[in-house]
Amino acid sequence: MGTAQWSPRRVHTPRYPRGVSSTASTPASSATSDTFAESLRRTEAIRSDLDAHPERYRVLTGDRPTGALHLGHYFGTLASRVVLQDQGVETWVLVADYQVITDRETTGNIQDNVRGLVLDYVAAGIDPERSTIFTHSAVPALNQLLLPFLSLVTEAELLRNPTVKAELAASERALSGLLLTYPVHQAADILFCKGNLVPVGKDQLPHIEQTRVVARRFNERYAKKNPVFPEPQALLSTSPEIPGLDGRKMSKSYGNTIALGMTADETAKVIRKAPTDSDRHISFDPANRPGVSALLTSAALATGGDPVQIAEEIGDGGGGALKAFVTEAINERFAAHRARRAELAADPGYVHEVLRRGNERANEVAEKTLDEVRAAMGMVY
Amino acid sequence: MGTAQWSPRRVHTPRYPRGVSSTASTPASSATSDTFAESLRRTEAIRSDLDAHPERYRVLTGDRPTGALHLGHYFGTLASRVVLQDQGVETWVLVADYQVITDRETTGNIQDNVRGLVLDYVAAGIDPERSTIFTHSAVPALNQLLLPFLSLVTEAELLRNPTVKAELAASERALSGLLLTYPVHQAADILFCKGNLVPVGKDQLPHIEQTRVVARRFNERYAKKNPVFPEPQALLSTSPEIPGLDGRKMSKSYGNTIALGMTADETAKVIRKAPTDSDRHISFDPANRPGVSALLTSAALATGGDPVQIAEEIGDGGGGALKAFVTEAINERFAAHRARRAELAADPGYVHEVLRRGNERANEVAEKTLDEVRAAMGMVY
Repeated sequence: MGTAQWSPRRVHTPRYPRGVSSTASTPASSATSDTFAESLRRTEAIRSDLDAHPERYRVLTGDRPTGALHLGHYFGTLASRVVLQDQGVETWVLVADYQVITDRETTGNIQDNVRGLVLDYVAAGIDPERSTIFTHSAVPALNQLLLPFLSLVTEAELLRNPTVKAELAASERALSGLLLTYPVHQAADILFCKGNLVPVGKDQLPHIEQTRVVARRFNERYAKKNPVFPEPQALLSTSPEIPGLDGRKMSKSYGNTIALGMTADETAKVIRKAPTDSDRHISFDPANRPGVSALLTSAALATGGDPVQIAEEIGDGGGGALKAFVTEAINERFAAHRARRAELAADPGYVHEVLRRGNERANEVAEKTLDEVRAAMGMVY
Repeated sequence: MGTAQWSPRRVHTPRYPRGVSSTASTPASSATSDTFAESLRRTEAIRSDLDAHPERYRVLTGDRPTGALHLGHYFGTLASRVVLQDQGVETWVLVADYQVITDRETTGNIQDNVRGLVLDYVAAGIDPERSTIFTHSAVPALNQLLLPFLSLVTEAELLRNPTVKAELAASERALSGLLLTYPVHQAADILFCKGNLVPVGKDQLPHIEQTRVVARRFNERYAKKNPVFPEPQALLSTSPEIPGLDGRKMSKSYGNTIALGMTADETAKVIRKAPTDSDRHISFDPANRPGVSALLTSAALATGGDPVQIAEEIGDGGGGALKAFVTEAINERFAAHRARRAELAADPGYVHEVLRRGNERANEVAEKTLDEVRAAMGMVY
């Protein structure tokens, strides 16, 4: 049960990942439908615009609190969220607690998971003074947007969503009403704060497209003269998928992840168990040596180095030397994070206070947007 | 576009109609599934319990604000809501404004329609001091309940709902996400105030069953020890369907309805246009003389008399005498209602104030229920 990126898929690639930015119109935007190549091209244009005009963007990102954040989350999404924030982009980080139950019948250890998420966010550099960390369940006006938005989407469109289809195919469970409608709920997540940029992996592009459709239809039906919503853009992730320690897909259920909050000893223990091979000469060869190469990738990410160079450095040291290198690299890379996390965790009221203030801000913005929506629809009596 | 009873069907029979009552457990209840005969039997048991213990019940009723309330609404549902209220049953009356867009792409004259509904409610005897009149769009915490509730219901169950299926078959439009999910939204309408009795027509029984399923599953999954929701009962309407003036189904689009807010002259004009037949001897014979019989039924409802006796009274007077009788009966029956309605309408702030207070009360109760839901689900951080 890894912390998924805010939607029912359990793969590493972020659902909603890395942040969205917004002002009423998206700066480097176009109104046409997304294709991958177009999205990449647009992402490049946005990246250069971002550097010049961070104030034009409002980013919405988030995670489902289904488990602990691990290295995959950190290097895949969390680190880049911090970069966006530090560039001056207004950042909203959603703890998507209702999305936990899209594909399961219990909320599990949700309090621990939410607490862990918030601690890792702040330890990683998300500054609750500048960025807004909030939970779904505490922002009724955001959730209310699901109602008018559901009227803008047909059943056929809901069933056509590739993530819904994939999740349905992969799962033994019947499709829940919440899973069926979650792309529309995500539209509410992005649009309640008028997010105009959503960092995503390739497979989340259809969700952004769904959100654009919702925004466009709402504006066309109810707000032709004064559009209420921006049509958000995807900020497409170009970072490759990070493998688990054994070379397989990173997943807590495989025991191949390193949680950010682990101690140095726990980290060493997990790495000790990672499979390597009998060739004592270390080389970076993902196709033929998945275990060794995954460890090299992890070391490279942790040190900011190159896996091939690290392999050369270790040379004929074998798996033991490789593992010692990786362990040290990761423990060193996250020593400050972990110290900060422990410090924050020692204050029993800290997480509560971060969320209280974040939710307060999210409610203010959601209520303002909902008022605009009511006015546009004539629901003012 | 007649004011439908709070859900996408446009027939006269109330969707949600006549009121619900609630305390944590339903007094005259059983946990088994509904059949019509069972529901009738249970309705009889509830009716006698109601007389003895009105304080055990909380009724939730409502209408979609898609047009003006007419005689069909009055005799079908509105009058009996007032009776329940006056018996001392706590009554919540929902103006289901989001349900307007389940089956159309515009909210139409929603402000006028909502205003008209509220005026008719109060003129008919719904007392805003004792009963709570409120709108969907103003109660975010109620709408938020849709999220956890959707997780309790499968796509297959949504598609199996007979009203959704019928509406889909009858409509040219694609099924909207809002129509697909509206039975779950109705569960939120009933359960947010812990309504335990819902006055319905026969075809709304599946909605009550859906609500019972949602309540039961929520309690089982999250609140085994302290159930949060009652399983509401249907208070099944036993009044026959009231025909339009021409004997067809009552529908504003047929021009065969008399709105409660019409003037005496407008009423006379509509009745003048109603079709009768060439037999001057008036008799009550719905199968062979639908027009004449519908007029007799209307007169009987308005006077509290019997259509056969009224026919005998008119005897050989023909259609003219019949229409004069019906016109006078209706205008007399609604003279006080209309005078009161005009008086209330003359105060420009009246409707706003009724809804402001009703929505305030609904929000208090919804937020309290939502807090219990969050606590049960562990979403307290």
